[in-house]
Amino acid sequence: MNLKTLFNLYENYRMESPFIGTPVELYEPMRYIMELGGKRARPLLSIASALSAGGNIENALPIGHTMEVFHNFTLVHDDILDNARLRRGQPTVHEKWNTPTAILSGDNMLVKAFEYLLAYQGKQKDEILNMFTRTAREVCEGQQMDMEFSQLEDVTEESYLEMIRLKTAVLLGCCAYGGASSAGASHEKAKKYYTFAESLGLAFQLDDDWLDTFGDASKTGKKAGGDIEEGKKTWLYIKAKNKGLQIAQLYATNQSEDRIYHATKLFKNHGLDEELKRLSAFYADKAADILQNLAQMGDKTHYLVELAEMLGKRES
Amino acid sequence: MNLKTLFNLYENYRMESPFIGTPVELYEPMRYIMELGGKRARPLLSIASALSAGGNIENALPIGHTMEVFHNFTLVHDDILDNARLRRGQPTVHEKWNTPTAILSGDNMLVKAFEYLLAYQGKQKDEILNMFTRTAREVCEGQQMDMEFSQLEDVTEESYLEMIRLKTAVLLGCCAYGGASSAGASHEKAKKYYTFAESLGLAFQLDDDWLDTFGDASKTGKKAGGDIEEGKKTWLYIKAKNKGLQIAQLYATNQSEDRIYHATKLFKNHGLDEELKRLSAFYADKAADILQNLAQMGDKTHYLVELAEMLGKRES
Repeated sequence: MNLKTLFNLYENYRMESPFIGTPVELYEPMRYIMELGGKRARPLLSIASALSAGGNIENALPIGHTMEVFHNFTLVHDDILDNARLRRGQPTVHEKWNTPTAILSGDNMLVKAFEYLLAYQGKQKDEILNMFTRTAREVCEGQQMDMEFSQLEDVTEESYLEMIRLKTAVLLGCCAYGGASSAGASHEKAKKYYTFAESLGLAFQLDDDWLDTFGDASKTGKKAGGDIEEGKKTWLYIKAKNKGLQIAQLYATNQSEDRIYHATKLFKNHGLDEELKRLSAFYADKAADILQNLAQMGDKTHYLVELAEMLGKRES
Repeated sequence: MNLKTLFNLYENYRMESPFIGTPVELYEPMRYIMELGGKRARPLLSIASALSAGGNIENALPIGHTMEVFHNFTLVHDDILDNARLRRGQPTVHEKWNTPTAILSGDNMLVKAFEYLLAYQGKQKDEILNMFTRTAREVCEGQQMDMEFSQLEDVTEESYLEMIRLKTAVLLGCCAYGGASSAGASHEKAKKYYTFAESLGLAFQLDDDWLDTFGDASKTGKKAGGDIEEGKKTWLYIKAKNKGLQIAQLYATNQSEDRIYHATKLFKNHGLDEELKRLSAFYADKAADILQNLAQMGDKTHYLVELAEMLGKRES
């Protein structure tokens, strides 16, 4: 078995439990978003963590599916918040249907996520429910922080890191926690899995920021500088601002192409590209250390190692 | 103790557990909507059902609060769906803040409702969780049906009743079910409380339709005919349409005041005012019969009798 086998097992499980119900217009968007594809990193994290901690796939599948449904709920609502028109190259739910239906279908997916988890019959149910509920709340908090940052002039690096932690990393942590717990791991042990996946998530997000500005377009598949063009407050912007560099003025006075050129140059001149790489590597190393530690204690971490590599393998 | 005492007990409980968290902009709207007031019919139903079934207030309070938080989540999202500007005379959440914040605050209230229920330590926890999860899903379905009906030309009376059952009555049923369960009632017995409150909810909604068209403005406090003016597909419209009356044409060709006058006359000429009264009375009687039956079995139903009277006592 390799990661691809686990992926296929999850896809089979997912397709065997589609969203069915009336009114049809409420359930169709729920099926639609779930079928847009993706790496299924969250259920894979749950399954690989379960196997690592000595559990089985069967108990981990409903946990992973809960997390994937929750993740897709956040996509439906976030796309409304961001006025996004496309998701994985297809129309977003509120574009294909309408905003009211997207709000309600999303709400119903959040309810469904709880429904799946409540139906779970395996080990450590209360621990997983508590962690999931806390995580769901934190993801809402992270999304709200993200929205507010776009309006704020001054954001600290610490707040920015906390925002990406809440918006993205905690759910990955919860996936790994739930998987390990389904294998019977104690709260303390499952927290190690949590911190591994949370760190991986932070590394991944910071890498995303780096690639967007400094990535090789021929490898990433998109033009470098998208975040600068949109004037997004990424780690690079915040760090430049907090170093006293004239980044706000540069964003305000330059047009598109000029802005990308000058901002990228400013970031590089002050070594921010290297600094961002180091920060991302710090979290990736932290994740790797935890895995190594778990392996030393006898856990079978090879799927998680493979998964971390797959998630990290993006062209730079 | 009377109903007012129970109301005050709930209000104290609610104020002792306010929504606190960061970012502030996420939690302020949650507090705001909860503090707009109201009759608190849902927590009162839970508490009165618990006392009726031999339980205590302490165990019923977290159940009732869960239901009130869930109800307020639906208000926040429904107000976006309906483009409503006012709620109890105050700006709606999306008006006072903005739609993205209203979506996220609502999402977080739904999570909070589950969080409260998961923290409940009393009797029949699994039964209450299952009923609540099912109810939350049904309320989403009912809201979607309501939206779709406004676009449909033909709606059956049966579908209309199913829509108001899902949109409003099932949550009242769940409140009573949860209260009785917290007193240790079996699923079978708690279902009697459910059906009582569900029937009461249906009677209440149908009464609402009646009052809107035939109510005495000096007593209801609002001009009769609001639903007709808005062209809403209420029970009266659907019933008239299905009887082959030319109500769609009347709505299409007449302006505001004229339309109210002619539609009201049409409904009355065909006895629909009486028929609606009878239907509402049918459900109210059903609710009363269940209470009587419960009282015969030794339950202490007097608070529920009082509550049903309070909810039914609206000027006609």
